[in-house]
Amino acid sequence: MKELKAKVEIKFKPGVLDPQGKAILSALHNLGYGEVEDARVGKLIELKLKDKSKEEATRRIEEMCKKLLANPVIEDFIIRFEE
Amino acid sequence: MKELKAKVEIKFKPGVLDPQGKAILSALHNLGYGEVEDARVGKLIELKLKDKSKEEATRRIEEMCKKLLANPVIEDFIIRFEE
Repeated sequence: MKELKAKVEIKFKPGVLDPQGKAILSALHNLGYGEVEDARVGKLIELKLKDKSKEEATRRIEEMCKKLLANPVIEDFIIRFEE
Repeated sequence: MKELKAKVEIKFKPGVLDPQGKAILSALHNLGYGEVEDARVGKLIELKLKDKSKEEATRRIEEMCKKLLANPVIEDFIIRFEE
């Protein structure tokens, strides 16, 4: 089975305050980028996995997110695979 | 013109050391996820922009990345748009 590359996008749930995003938004406005209406900051984790099908890998990565990578109380995550 | 949603993925260039990624890799191995061969951590910035075409927005976001969002010496960035 070939190597899988997965991208995990972790971002705050809607409604959760994002002070880093607010700081970026304000800095962008100060730099003259007034067209930016909102900025939210999340994490992007790229994983290389061996010997797993996509189904099995999705299940395992969901577990990893719940146990370690994300905080399920305030964060959502999306798993995508790259060819 | 409608509102645009852009996702900016910022990650270390290949070869740049990523201590946070190494820490995650080691923690995943300790938790029993031995199938993970590599982990790299990046940033994901979501921007909402008004009154710009995609071409204009891409040009402006590239500027924002170079000036504020990314460190072009050690980081690469990718801009994607969501409908």
